[in-house]
Amino acid sequence: MSDAAALPALRQRAAHLDTTDDLAKLRDRFALPEGLVYLDGNSLGALPAGVAAVTADVVHRQWGELLIRSWDESNWWTAPERIGDKLSPLIGAAPGQTVVGDSTSVNLFKALVGAARLAPPGRTRMLVDANTFPTDGYIAASAARMTGLRVVPVDPATAAEEMDEDTAVVLLNHVDYRTGRLHDLPALTRAARATGAITVWDLCHSAGALPVGLDEHQVDLAVGCTYKYLNGGPGSPAYLYIAARHQAAFDSPLPGWNGHAEPFAMTPGYTPADGAVRGRVGTPDILSMLALEAALDAWDGVSVEQVRAKSLALTDFFLECVAAYVPEGKVQAVTPAEHAHRGSQVSLRAENAAEIMRELIARGVVGDFRAPDVLRFGFTPLYVGFADVERAARTLGHVFG
Amino acid sequence: MSDAAALPALRQRAAHLDTTDDLAKLRDRFALPEGLVYLDGNSLGALPAGVAAVTADVVHRQWGELLIRSWDESNWWTAPERIGDKLSPLIGAAPGQTVVGDSTSVNLFKALVGAARLAPPGRTRMLVDANTFPTDGYIAASAARMTGLRVVPVDPATAAEEMDEDTAVVLLNHVDYRTGRLHDLPALTRAARATGAITVWDLCHSAGALPVGLDEHQVDLAVGCTYKYLNGGPGSPAYLYIAARHQAAFDSPLPGWNGHAEPFAMTPGYTPADGAVRGRVGTPDILSMLALEAALDAWDGVSVEQVRAKSLALTDFFLECVAAYVPEGKVQAVTPAEHAHRGSQVSLRAENAAEIMRELIARGVVGDFRAPDVLRFGFTPLYVGFADVERAARTLGHVFG
Repeated sequence: MSDAAALPALRQRAAHLDTTDDLAKLRDRFALPEGLVYLDGNSLGALPAGVAAVTADVVHRQWGELLIRSWDESNWWTAPERIGDKLSPLIGAAPGQTVVGDSTSVNLFKALVGAARLAPPGRTRMLVDANTFPTDGYIAASAARMTGLRVVPVDPATAAEEMDEDTAVVLLNHVDYRTGRLHDLPALTRAARATGAITVWDLCHSAGALPVGLDEHQVDLAVGCTYKYLNGGPGSPAYLYIAARHQAAFDSPLPGWNGHAEPFAMTPGYTPADGAVRGRVGTPDILSMLALEAALDAWDGVSVEQVRAKSLALTDFFLECVAAYVPEGKVQAVTPAEHAHRGSQVSLRAENAAEIMRELIARGVVGDFRAPDVLRFGFTPLYVGFADVERAARTLGHVFG
Repeated sequence: MSDAAALPALRQRAAHLDTTDDLAKLRDRFALPEGLVYLDGNSLGALPAGVAAVTADVVHRQWGELLIRSWDESNWWTAPERIGDKLSPLIGAAPGQTVVGDSTSVNLFKALVGAARLAPPGRTRMLVDANTFPTDGYIAASAARMTGLRVVPVDPATAAEEMDEDTAVVLLNHVDYRTGRLHDLPALTRAARATGAITVWDLCHSAGALPVGLDEHQVDLAVGCTYKYLNGGPGSPAYLYIAARHQAAFDSPLPGWNGHAEPFAMTPGYTPADGAVRGRVGTPDILSMLALEAALDAWDGVSVEQVRAKSLALTDFFLECVAAYVPEGKVQAVTPAEHAHRGSQVSLRAENAAEIMRELIARGVVGDFRAPDVLRFGFTPLYVGFADVERAARTLGHVFG
C-alpha cells in the first residue's frame, strides 16, 4: 500500500545505509551520469573510470605506433588467458582454467560439444534449462544435433530428478535472466556428478554479483559474459572455464590456430595447447579485450562476498520500498523473497510493463523490460547505493500514482 | 647483383612514381610513425586517423553516458550488417549479404558447416587448400568431422581436377598467406559450380588489396578478417558473406540469438532471420566493431581497382629494387612474377630469414617472418609509397652486405 508517511523514514534509512556502506566509495571508480539511477547493470554495466585512458593508449600507442610489435611488446598475444586469470577469483576458479574471447554463444557451443565428448559414451540426453536465456537453448539444440544427443528441457528447480545414467550433459543458468531466481549450483552440480553427467553452467547473471565457487563445487565447464556485472563494455568478450581435470581431454569443436600448442609453427596438423588455452579460437579482439582488462581494475581489493552482502541488502531494501510506495496490486515480485534463491536483480510483473518502463526511464530511473510483462531491475553493488534504490521505488510509485 | 650505380636512379624513379601516384595523398588518412617503412599491413593494418576520435566517443558518450540506450540510439544493434554493407564494395558484394562479427575461424566454421548443409546430399568430400593458413585446415577438419565429410587436401593450382560429383564443399584461399600467390577465383569457382559443389573462399589476404568480385563470379560463401588490408585494428571482427541465393537455406551451426528473426521475442524455438543477418551469433563486440566502421572511412572515394594497379606497381618496383640491391643468390622470390598470380605481398626465401627480418626491423623496415625461411613484405597501397619500397629493398641489401 502506498504510504506517504513512509517517505521520509525510508529516505533517512537510505541515507544511513549509504553512510555505513563500506563499498559506497567504489562508485568513484565509475563514470556515471549525474542524477541517473542506473539499475540496468545486469544488461550493460557502467563505464569504469580507467577504461578510457587504456583504450586511448591501445589505439594511439600500442596499435598506431608499435603496430605489429605489440603482439609481443604490449602482451596482446597472451591477453585471453591473462584476463581469464584476472577474473577467475570472481568465479571461484584457480588460475589456468579460464580464457576470455568470443561471445557467450560461441563459448557455449565449445562447452556443450566439449561436454558431450567428455561424457561417458553411449549416453543420449542433454538436459537444458527450459527457462534459459534463448541463445543457450538455440545453441544447445545445435550442439545436440551435431553430437547425436537429444535435448530434454528441464526446470532447474527439479532438474536433479531428471538426471540419470543416460544423461550426458546438463546445461543450467546460475541465475535466471528473467525472474532473477538463483539456482542451487552446488546441489545441482553434485547431483549431475553422481550420475557421471558433465555440467555446463551459464554464469552471465551471477558472475560479479555473488559467489560462484566453480572449483569448490567441482563444476566441469562454465561460460559467461563480461558486460553485465563485470562492466567490460558493450559486447565485450565472454569467457570459458574448463576445469583443470578435464583440460587434457577437452576436445573443442572450434580448434582455431590460437588454441594450438605452437600457433606460429603453422603446422597442418592440430595439436591442442595445454590448459585452458585450448579453448581459444581465432585472433583475440584486442581493443575490446584490453578495455575489459582495465574494467576489471574496479574490483581491486573487493571480495565477491562483500558484494553479495550488499546486493542482498539492496534488493531487500528495494522490495521494502516498493511495498511502501507502489499501490497494492500493481506489481508482483517474480524474484524469490528467500536470499538463497535470489540473484542480484528484482523482477516485478506488471500490466503494461513496457510502457511503465519507458516512463520510468524518462524520469531518470533505468531498468529494463523483458517480454511479456516483466520490469527488471539489476542491482550492481559497486556503483548502486541505497538512495538510488529508494528513489527508484519512489519513482515507480509515482508512475503508478 | 648489388649495383651501387643503380642507387640514385632508383631513388629518382621512386620519387617520380610517388609524385604521379593519385593515391599518395591517402597516406594522410593514417597515423603512421615518422620514418618507419611499414610493410606488414598484410598482418596488422596501420591506424586510420579517424579511429581514435570514434573510439573515444564510443567509450565516453555512447557507453558512459547513454549506457543501455545506445543499443538503439547509437545504432549498436545493427552494426554487424551495417558494417558488412560498408565493406561489401571492397569484395564485390551487393548489400545484404555480409555481416561482421566473430573471428575468421568462427566464421569459417559457420561457412563450412553451412556449405555442407547446402551441398547436394550424399556427397562425401571437402576439398581444402593444402597450403592454407593453418586455422582454416584445423577448422575444416572439425567441420568435416561434425558433418560426416572427409577432408581432401588439394593444391589450388590443380584443385579443379579434383572436383567431382562426390565433392560437397571446396575451401580455398584467394591469396596464399605464405607465398603471396593469387589463385584463380573465377575459374575455380566456375569449376566447383559445374560439379554442384559449394565454394567457401577465404579472403583474408586479398580483400582490400585487389578485386574479389564475389557476386560477379557467383561465389557461394566467403569469410575474411578485417585487420589486414582493411585496417580494422588488432583482432578486429571478421566477416561472413552468404550469397543471396543461399540465404534462405543457410543453416548455421551457431544459431545465436542475434541471428534470430525476432531476438527480443526471446522465444524458445529458433527462427532464423532473413538475409545475411542469420549469420550473426552473439552480442556484437561494439568497441572493436565501431573502430572498424571508422577505419573503413579510409576507403572513401577509393576504388579497389585503383588499389590493385598501385599494388602491382609497388610489388614490381620492389622486385626490381631487390634485384638491384641484394647480392645475387641471397634471396629467391616465392611470389609469382606474373601479375595474374600475384597478391599484394612479396615473399622472399632466404637463409636465416628470422634473423634477417629482426635486423631489418631494427633498421626501421617492418615486414615479417614466416616459418621456415620466408621474409614476407606486404604492400598496402593506401599508405605505402614508392620511396618506402626503394628504402626497404636498399636496407635489405645493406643487411646482406
